[in-house]
Amino acid sequence: MIQSYNDEDALVLVSGGQDSVTCLFWALKNFKKVHCITFDYSQKHSKEIEIAQNICKKLGLTQKIVDISFLKDLVISNLFEGQNDVNEKHKLNENIPSSFVPYRNLIFLTLASAWASTINVKNIVAGVCQTDYSGYADCRDVFVKSAQTTLNLATDFKDKNVVIHTPLMWLTKCEEFKMADELGCLDFIINETLTCYNGVEKLNDFGKGCGVCPSCELRKKGFYEYKKKYQNSGNNE
Amino acid sequence: MIQSYNDEDALVLVSGGQDSVTCLFWALKNFKKVHCITFDYSQKHSKEIEIAQNICKKLGLTQKIVDISFLKDLVISNLFEGQNDVNEKHKLNENIPSSFVPYRNLIFLTLASAWASTINVKNIVAGVCQTDYSGYADCRDVFVKSAQTTLNLATDFKDKNVVIHTPLMWLTKCEEFKMADELGCLDFIINETLTCYNGVEKLNDFGKGCGVCPSCELRKKGFYEYKKKYQNSGNNE
Repeated sequence: MIQSYNDEDALVLVSGGQDSVTCLFWALKNFKKVHCITFDYSQKHSKEIEIAQNICKKLGLTQKIVDISFLKDLVISNLFEGQNDVNEKHKLNENIPSSFVPYRNLIFLTLASAWASTINVKNIVAGVCQTDYSGYADCRDVFVKSAQTTLNLATDFKDKNVVIHTPLMWLTKCEEFKMADELGCLDFIINETLTCYNGVEKLNDFGKGCGVCPSCELRKKGFYEYKKKYQNSGNNE
Repeated sequence: MIQSYNDEDALVLVSGGQDSVTCLFWALKNFKKVHCITFDYSQKHSKEIEIAQNICKKLGLTQKIVDISFLKDLVISNLFEGQNDVNEKHKLNENIPSSFVPYRNLIFLTLASAWASTINVKNIVAGVCQTDYSGYADCRDVFVKSAQTTLNLATDFKDKNVVIHTPLMWLTKCEEFKMADELGCLDFIINETLTCYNGVEKLNDFGKGCGVCPSCELRKKGFYEYKKKYQNSGNNE
């Protein structure tokens, strides 16, 4: 799994959720120095921002917070505060969940690359994953690779070209819990991260969350699979 | 030159400069209905915003203004207000002008696509041009085509895929003045648009501007070439 990036820095997109924080620990293991960037876009689960701040503080990492709450005036999504149930279908396309924020990950990656150019970092780490991509086109590998190409064509910085690392791309949630265990951060992931669409901070055995939104469902299912497969204790199911 | 888009709408990126406003007239000729989007990013020539507003008002067009002034806290460029001379070399790369704003056009195209998805428009028109691209990598055709691919991979909207039109891509400034003449908007371009990096509104025969910044130099040179070649009157040189 591990390539040698140890003499380079990385910028990690940290939302405060399970995926990004698992990536953060992966980056801490694989890069010389780790910087963080967090986006505030008026998401329903805006407690993620506070949580992301606490996590960066606990780990002693620098964090750039970028307010892009103007996004809610540009695109349609039920993920924004004050919008309807995220379990509905998307207004733009009934085949995708209403929680989809069009172009969100491209905006994130572009602004992260912008900040990376300023702090002289070329490695970007993002917790996107194609395995359980839930209809989010911008979590797919083909999108990320195309984005990297476009980002580098936008600047022509040559030896400073950005490289986007996506260590979770082909993992299931179950495998992601195993990865956290291997990285020595499983307890941290369970106790500190928040992925819940409803921003509920109730602590369950699989972590914080309401336990019923699509995001909690995915996390819960993955956790119990992990427990059963790797800890041989199916008694929580 | 003209394909048949006449039953479709378009969203034009309008900065208030010569290029975008020439594109605006091109779009008015080629699309059923034209919408405008303008970005405020604390550019030195921020009078462009007012000018863009006046132009949209004069032409009776709807205009979305998006404040992305947070950009100045993310990337290095002398194009931002309060920064040094735009004639210097860029701090990130001495081969590009200091006026280069890394990732600017990708941010513009992404946010324009975001708004386009909301107003149900798939055609985006941008006044980028490779001919006199001044070292701006994100004005090149290869960048725009890659951006279109990435934008569509980000959403997977299928029949609503965005198409980025760049009618100026291979034109010289001289040819752009000729195009404006053919579109019947040459006087409008001269009298109403502002391209000057220093935001000087002094009216010259080639249009508004300080007359000495790289952008004015390019415009002036193109105008006199146009006059000489197509109006057979070299007396302004």
